[in-house]
Amino acid sequence: MSEVLIGVVEKVTEHAAALRPRVAAKSPRVHCITNTVAQAFTANMLLAAGATPSVTTSPEEIAGFVASADNLLVNLGTLDRERREAIGLALDAATARGLPWVLDPVFVDRSAPRLEFARTLLARKPAVIRLNAAELAALAGEVASPNCAHKFARKSGAIVAVTGEIDIVTDGERLINLQNGDELMSKVTAMGCAESAFVASALAVESDRWLATAAAMMVFGIAGERAAEESDGPGSLAVAMLDCLHGMTAETVEQYAWAEA
Amino acid sequence: MSEVLIGVVEKVTEHAAALRPRVAAKSPRVHCITNTVAQAFTANMLLAAGATPSVTTSPEEIAGFVASADNLLVNLGTLDRERREAIGLALDAATARGLPWVLDPVFVDRSAPRLEFARTLLARKPAVIRLNAAELAALAGEVASPNCAHKFARKSGAIVAVTGEIDIVTDGERLINLQNGDELMSKVTAMGCAESAFVASALAVESDRWLATAAAMMVFGIAGERAAEESDGPGSLAVAMLDCLHGMTAETVEQYAWAEA
Amino acid sequence: MSEVLIGVVEKVTEHAAALRPRVAAKSPRVHCITNTVAQAFTANMLLAAGATPSVTTSPEEIAGFVASADNLLVNLGTLDRERREAIGLALDAATARGLPWVLDPVFVDRSAPRLEFARTLLARKPAVIRLNAAELAALAGEVASPNCAHKFARKSGAIVAVTGEIDIVTDGERLINLQNGDELMSKVTAMGCAESAFVASALAVESDRWLATAAAMMVFGIAGERAAEESDGPGSLAVAMLDCLHGMTAETVEQYAWAEA
Repeated sequence: MSEVLIGVVEKVTEHAAALRPRVAAKSPRVHCITNTVAQAFTANMLLAAGATPSVTTSPEEIAGFVASADNLLVNLGTLDRERREAIGLALDAATARGLPWVLDPVFVDRSAPRLEFARTLLARKPAVIRLNAAELAALAGEVASPNCAHKFARKSGAIVAVTGEIDIVTDGERLINLQNGDELMSKVTAMGCAESAFVASALAVESDRWLATAAAMMVFGIAGERAAEESDGPGSLAVAMLDCLHGMTAETVEQYAWAEA
Repeated sequence: MSEVLIGVVEKVTEHAAALRPRVAAKSPRVHCITNTVAQAFTANMLLAAGATPSVTTSPEEIAGFVASADNLLVNLGTLDRERREAIGLALDAATARGLPWVLDPVFVDRSAPRLEFARTLLARKPAVIRLNAAELAALAGEVASPNCAHKFARKSGAIVAVTGEIDIVTDGERLINLQNGDELMSKVTAMGCAESAFVASALAVESDRWLATAAAMMVFGIAGERAAEESDGPGSLAVAMLDCLHGMTAETVEQYAWAEA
Repeated sequence: MSEVLIGVVEKVTEHAAALRPRVAAKSPRVHCITNTVAQAFTANMLLAAGATPSVTTSPEEIAGFVASADNLLVNLGTLDRERREAIGLALDAATARGLPWVLDPVFVDRSAPRLEFARTLLARKPAVIRLNAAELAALAGEVASPNCAHKFARKSGAIVAVTGEIDIVTDGERLINLQNGDELMSKVTAMGCAESAFVASALAVESDRWLATAAAMMVFGIAGERAAEESDGPGSLAVAMLDCLHGMTAETVEQYAWAEA
């Protein structure tokens, strides 16, 4: 591993260590268009992180909420008519203000119309796309791999964050493999959705989007790993995740950080 | 402090001590039109209190549910078209039966059309309005203060309950400051929404609406304070709140009660 | 008790002991049309059981999800226009593929139009109907009793599973009384809804529908009973249920099983 690459891990770790206090200090307003299953857990995760969530998808109201938000999350779960309409209005409002936004294309591998809709959103230039390997394969149209993520980042102009046993964050140039986390996290619904929201909150305090995304995902993985240590199963893990993210310190991040460039 | 005022605190404490068993004995049916984030936590809070929640917002069904309910909560979060329609139908059904109802004007400070809608609901005469300082300021059109709450109670004819570091409950004549609770409660989504629902359940067992509201909010604050003592963060707090409210005894209320008239 | 009847309990217990590993090995995709209150808890229960949940009710998407699902749950809570439309489309897709589906007619005793709608669904031949005594009485049009359940199973052609202090599972021929569980389970919202979803996952691994239903409900009751032992109230019970179902072993089932034919 070259010194340059070691430097990348160190830089992400340093930013991860500082992230929780920075989010709490600014308490960014993150407006979340997210699926009905994920709303409560996502809002609780943002509150635990020190951010201020709002989640309405009402077309009459959404422009007003985005107008006073620092950031926007667009999650495609439970994609009904209201959400489709709300997403268009929210992106208009976000674009008008130059707000970066995060796309979470949940289950595009399970629904052709949802995949089609997700493709149209790429033209609206998300700052970050967070997804799993099956969703990446569907969206990129090829077998998921680090190289595929790299190419997709270059093509879309977005940071691409692929979660799995190892998480990958790439902007098409820089790439980091994040190894924190625990398998039990996949047994809690909306875990990935909540992670995407946390990434959105990080974009509000760090202008280097790749660094913000990598740092947020490192912190999230550490919170999950620590929570799993003290959990008896997925129920207690979900509860402990919120406690761990709320109480996350720089020392914990530095102690647990596990990544490779 | 005059003897009269000491008497107010004692009376509220006495009613708070008796509230949980009274609610459990009657098990009032509380129909909750509330936002999608708050529905599960609110229903769980009502069940923990011994009440029977229902939460449909389907316009086809809502009149039937309100017709067999003891009480109605109208919370303005995630205020989509269906909810606006449902609220009108539910208020018609509640008014026809003389049911008192609780208004929770969530985030009216963040959305102009929601504020406008909340104002039209004041003409439907809510029994109680529970909100935070920012929402009160938006609705009353002036800087929030105890005096503003007082005036707004007189003008609206409702009990006004303002939650914050200290909670205020006023009917325009009587006023109490409730000091129980814990700052960590603000890091759990839908905490205020669930509190409004618990207030609604109290209205079903106590005809003095100011007393019912003050007693319910004292009990809720104590549940939060006790839960915070045994919690490691907002995740475990939310869980412990439900356990504490479910197991609330008169002794605990008397031991923890902290208020000033 | 005859040897035949003792054999029934033993057979159900044997299948219950093997159920959790079988579900985890297949990880069936269970598509859940369920109410907004129940979605997150239901999805978490399925994940804890080793199944793969999806929950969209968007009419544009639902046929695609059901087309790649192993099973379908239709829960009538929060029955809005979108859900009515989605249910019709989902049943068309399920019928085309011969998928068994579970009906949970929540609160049909509280809403006349919902009861009417539930009756029309009987013609679509649910594999299992899970409900409580009040819902059975409304749907069958007579006072709920084991005999009423028996007759309703014969008439509908479905397995009828009635939950209460004692659960009854009948196909009109075979009947078992399940006595595991804990009263505190009734103080957690969506507990019955989550149980229906778990029954749906069991249908994906066991073709004898009565046996699958009885085994699933035995396991669910044991998970609740064990969770209640280590809980301080309904909040911690809900969390512990997920942990207990996730960690359920054959030994625990055999140790706790309590039933009578």
